[in-house]
Amino acid sequence: MKPPDPAKLSLNTATTRGKWGLAQAIEGCARHGIRGISPWRDLLHAMGVAKAARAIRAHELTVTGHCRGGMFPAPDARGRKRAIDDNLRAIEEAHALGARCLVLVVGGLPKGSKDIAGAREQVKDGLAAILPHARQAGVPLAIEPLHPMYAADRACVNTLSQALDLCDALDPAKGGALGVAVDVYHVWWDPQLERQIRRAGRKRLLAYHICDWLVPTTDLLLDRGMMGDGIVDLHCIRAWMEAAGYAGFHEVEIFSAKNWWRRNPDSVLEICKARHRRFG
Amino acid sequence: MKPPDPAKLSLNTATTRGKWGLAQAIEGCARHGIRGISPWRDLLHAMGVAKAARAIRAHELTVTGHCRGGMFPAPDARGRKRAIDDNLRAIEEAHALGARCLVLVVGGLPKGSKDIAGAREQVKDGLAAILPHARQAGVPLAIEPLHPMYAADRACVNTLSQALDLCDALDPAKGGALGVAVDVYHVWWDPQLERQIRRAGRKRLLAYHICDWLVPTTDLLLDRGMMGDGIVDLHCIRAWMEAAGYAGFHEVEIFSAKNWWRRNPDSVLEICKARHRRFG
Repeated sequence: MKPPDPAKLSLNTATTRGKWGLAQAIEGCARHGIRGISPWRDLLHAMGVAKAARAIRAHELTVTGHCRGGMFPAPDARGRKRAIDDNLRAIEEAHALGARCLVLVVGGLPKGSKDIAGAREQVKDGLAAILPHARQAGVPLAIEPLHPMYAADRACVNTLSQALDLCDALDPAKGGALGVAVDVYHVWWDPQLERQIRRAGRKRLLAYHICDWLVPTTDLLLDRGMMGDGIVDLHCIRAWMEAAGYAGFHEVEIFSAKNWWRRNPDSVLEICKARHRRFG
Repeated sequence: MKPPDPAKLSLNTATTRGKWGLAQAIEGCARHGIRGISPWRDLLHAMGVAKAARAIRAHELTVTGHCRGGMFPAPDARGRKRAIDDNLRAIEEAHALGARCLVLVVGGLPKGSKDIAGAREQVKDGLAAILPHARQAGVPLAIEPLHPMYAADRACVNTLSQALDLCDALDPAKGGALGVAVDVYHVWWDPQLERQIRRAGRKRLLAYHICDWLVPTTDLLLDRGMMGDGIVDLHCIRAWMEAAGYAGFHEVEIFSAKNWWRRNPDSVLEICKARHRRFG
């Protein structure tokens, strides 16, 4: 398979969060010729939105996604309202950054609840509430299905199929305001992956995140691997994405407390580039 | 919801494996009035099949499943043949024990492979190879879909839908020789769970395993919870199983290195009984 275009590499700041704030990540991307970046909100707030937007523009980086909105379910109406307000702020930030999408990790079960069907309804309601604002701001919302091991505490949308059902229900005209973020870590195992990527199509494939699944995986959250170190067939999944019309960035997002977060981020970026070329 | 019949409780020996061999587990079940047991093969081999079968019969326990066959994928034909031979031995053991089914954990990616579709084909081939023997021995095969977090290293069949597709392909007449084991730990998150349990129906619902999903879960393998300690709506899932015609046992299978395996197994069995009554 043809190697990916190096100009499509993007850095999700989760990958360097052990060492770098957002300003350093922006400078790092510029220094290493990485053309895309995806900031996390805590780092963005620490730097300041206006300052970050200026620095990103100065280096002509593409903001491939803003991480993240979502977290809709809550035990009561007040909590759900608070979540929606926070999502509206995230939309404003994404707009200020010129982000290609706002990535949504939709949230899991409200505290004390065992009602996952109910949580999923709350997610749908939350999405419906913020979608008009996202449309108005010109910020597409990218629902990110998370691996089923996060269903209880992070996201009760766990397959691409489920995410696309939400898109069909809330944006049947495929206007481009609602779509999905495909992160290989979360979906690589799904027997329906190829079919659902095809179903999503160009209009709903808003982001593509890469890393690798390690064997063994020693932590549910913070043990993701660098491309090539695990068992995900990234060539295969990229081929499916491209066949479906996706032409966007390949965003490296690696949570790795024991390995990559401890390393010198400049060397991490060099390795990201090399691995992207070889395995991406 | 009506509490479950206490006579339907079964002990999977994984629950007491920190302290008890099979002989002790059999005695323990008898002592505590637990009417079902499901042995793991290593414990069975340590005790001896004939001796175990005699002890189980003497106490009139039902063997709700034999754990476990499967592990079909391998890097080469020799490895696959070895796996099939081992499954044939497991079928013989299950027959000797009068087990209601042989539980199959189908296996993950062969070492060095990233080809999950290929692994899934190998599983299908392996099942096809052993099914005639299982039929002849009168030992139904129960495919157990494992949580997607085990897709790489334990089982590449990860949803009930996938397991039932295999049943449809290999036993289209629903003769009863091939079905599924529904373990709440692996499937609770699945948005299609109710539909797929209904699709399976009485003839293919061969086993039902219970425990709970803890929040947070601190280990991918050995941090399962006791019923009631987590977020799984066991009442709801049992209602779906019963509505689909399942009338078999409720087998408690808890891998718990840091908690339940360290406790006195007699007290664990008492707690299993109480939690089964309340949450099962």
